[in-house]
Amino acid sequence: MSPRNAFYAQSGGVTAVINASACGVIETARLHADRIGAVYAGRNGIIGALTEDLIDTGQESADAIAALRHTPAGAFGSCRYKLKSLDQNRAEYERLIEVFRAHDIGYFFYNGGGDSADTCLKVSQLSATLGYPLQAIHVPKTVDNDLPITDCCPGFGSVAKYVAVSIREAGFDVASMSRTSTKVFVLEVMGRHAGWIAAAGGLAAQKAGDAPHIILFPEIPFDEAAFLTRTEECVKKYGYCAVVVSEGVRNAEGKFLADAGTRDAFGHAQLGGVGPVVAQLVKEKLGYKYHWAVADYLQRAARHIASKVDVEQAYAMGKAAVDFAMQGHNAVMPTIVRTSQKPYRWKVGMAPLEKVANVEKMLPRDYITPDGFHITAKGRRYLAPLIQGEDYPPYKDGLPQYVTLRNKPVRKKLKTAFVV
Amino acid sequence: MSPRNAFYAQSGGVTAVINASACGVIETARLHADRIGAVYAGRNGIIGALTEDLIDTGQESADAIAALRHTPAGAFGSCRYKLKSLDQNRAEYERLIEVFRAHDIGYFFYNGGGDSADTCLKVSQLSATLGYPLQAIHVPKTVDNDLPITDCCPGFGSVAKYVAVSIREAGFDVASMSRTSTKVFVLEVMGRHAGWIAAAGGLAAQKAGDAPHIILFPEIPFDEAAFLTRTEECVKKYGYCAVVVSEGVRNAEGKFLADAGTRDAFGHAQLGGVGPVVAQLVKEKLGYKYHWAVADYLQRAARHIASKVDVEQAYAMGKAAVDFAMQGHNAVMPTIVRTSQKPYRWKVGMAPLEKVANVEKMLPRDYITPDGFHITAKGRRYLAPLIQGEDYPPYKDGLPQYVTLRNKPVRKKLKTAFVV
Repeated sequence: MSPRNAFYAQSGGVTAVINASACGVIETARLHADRIGAVYAGRNGIIGALTEDLIDTGQESADAIAALRHTPAGAFGSCRYKLKSLDQNRAEYERLIEVFRAHDIGYFFYNGGGDSADTCLKVSQLSATLGYPLQAIHVPKTVDNDLPITDCCPGFGSVAKYVAVSIREAGFDVASMSRTSTKVFVLEVMGRHAGWIAAAGGLAAQKAGDAPHIILFPEIPFDEAAFLTRTEECVKKYGYCAVVVSEGVRNAEGKFLADAGTRDAFGHAQLGGVGPVVAQLVKEKLGYKYHWAVADYLQRAARHIASKVDVEQAYAMGKAAVDFAMQGHNAVMPTIVRTSQKPYRWKVGMAPLEKVANVEKMLPRDYITPDGFHITAKGRRYLAPLIQGEDYPPYKDGLPQYVTLRNKPVRKKLKTAFVV
Repeated sequence: MSPRNAFYAQSGGVTAVINASACGVIETARLHADRIGAVYAGRNGIIGALTEDLIDTGQESADAIAALRHTPAGAFGSCRYKLKSLDQNRAEYERLIEVFRAHDIGYFFYNGGGDSADTCLKVSQLSATLGYPLQAIHVPKTVDNDLPITDCCPGFGSVAKYVAVSIREAGFDVASMSRTSTKVFVLEVMGRHAGWIAAAGGLAAQKAGDAPHIILFPEIPFDEAAFLTRTEECVKKYGYCAVVVSEGVRNAEGKFLADAGTRDAFGHAQLGGVGPVVAQLVKEKLGYKYHWAVADYLQRAARHIASKVDVEQAYAMGKAAVDFAMQGHNAVMPTIVRTSQKPYRWKVGMAPLEKVANVEKMLPRDYITPDGFHITAKGRRYLAPLIQGEDYPPYKDGLPQYVTLRNKPVRKKLKTAFVV
């Protein structure tokens, strides 16, 4: 059996550790030269496959590939491009198979979240229908931590650590200034649908009075009166109040707080996110001086403060994907299985893609305190291991040394173009 | 000569390393038990002196004091409270001397920026007038990097490193998503009066195409047309554009861009800062998808990514202040003197306070490129050494272990209260 080539692509919002998964895929594939020929990466994700814009990772040195482990974001480019259903756009799936056939792709490694798990499954199904032999393995990745079956998702632990560290540090800052200056600090974090990231901020509070004092979750409709009461209590008790707010917080009518705000003179929606909206509310209703921060991409790109557990799991998922392929599996995803809580231990598991696609894992209600403003001991037990350990990148001249790959294109073989 | 007590206070906005200076003061004072008795800290800065709310640092263990070196923010509390001129409010200065006399304070260590240098000088002058022997030493601290004479200011190097690391990481993120998603990313950083912090972001760009592509300085009136042209050029050339904007950027009329924005339906000024204003402008005029982040306190509290050079200098300034006092100096400030550029070397110098007070060191025009959008090689030479080295705090359970002191009060000796 002559070796066949592998295709790898990054999908959706990138993370601090998705390249660690790429590293795991490529390094492991290189160990199987007898069965895996070239590893081609899609330039800008699946778009690279559709347009036959492939990157030859074989042109990268072992050192460059190793450096992916400590480099944030998507080294081959990612994309927000969701393939439609097979019924709606069968042509796209057939095009993928056409490109794969032209380049003798026998292994399809797709590194992303729920949507890409679904795509991966469909590609696998179509290849069977068309009689084109292909093993499709999904490599889990999402800061949103919303994939089912796996205990957690690579990418989440590092955002979680960033948010917990940041609110702890900002809390120390505000505490020291609150006598004459800022009394309320609001940190807006990601999480449009679920409060996993906001919940992680709660890890910074290890004893009474620690920041954050209040967490606002998308799962809990915003109760303005209760929030203001709690804020005032904190300021009176601790001198200040530190708040972590998820971008996805909604009011009782289900509208995003960020959108529910006022419009400017031109009718544009509020430029700010939910952070400034909440801060302004505090100012208006309680009169406290406030500051707010919006971490935005900083939180998911912060490789400098990545969780060591997260980096190891991201790498392991990439490695396992190739191992699974070598074992003959298809339409599966490696998962993280928590085998011990204390000490924290985990191992690699496997999930069939049909059980992963289109299922969102929500933050359990019992991870949130009854009053809706913090995490419970149970939530803390789940979250705490995921931010363990530091895994610092190398530095030069005071700056982290992240790799930029050469990303040499593979010569096209098809005459047909494809417009996405 | 029996030992006299020392007073130490933190003033103004805190930094990632002001506690390292406190550590330097206290550890060095403890080595001079024959001449320095207790070290009392002002609770919430100079307010603690005015209200006789003193903290006995002698109640803190050597380990706790050592931990100040890696703890951000102000461990004794700081304040934004500027003493008026001697003419306007002589009573405040006399009150300070009254409290110092009651507690036999012979050494006044004041850790702050330009305003506090001025206060320190006035206290020194009044103590001479009143015949109360006191040595007043200012310990430099400010993220704004605007103190004169000293080559740089403790606190600045760590913000500089945070901003450079953050824009590099966010740049990698945006670069990988720009094919189908965000094309322009805007990071708002501190610096109301001077562009030192924004300039530091420029260090992340080490070769053509690196983020940040554009820096907006308070020193350069915002030229909308030129900015939009440059932004579009970047997106066309590199696929994306990463912008660092100082909160202090003004338009041609001298109005802060953050304030020049629109008002909402209730007439409130824009909630957002200048970051969202600039991002929205890009969207309106060029149609690019944008994201923005406002780092706010996160940048100055980020001890987890502090510059090692900055930490060492902050500690050295605290130590030198005590050394100067032991040598009999008064009304002076230790400074950082750059003795070699390559390799970077520095030593401790000394400046008379009358040359420090009320002088602001601005970002030289020749540190900014002629087009006003980036830093020059000269600016880079100045800035680069200040972010060198990492000085990670200890971690436990995935979180940095910052110390919270016991902050035991010193028994009051005065019958008189003082209302600030």
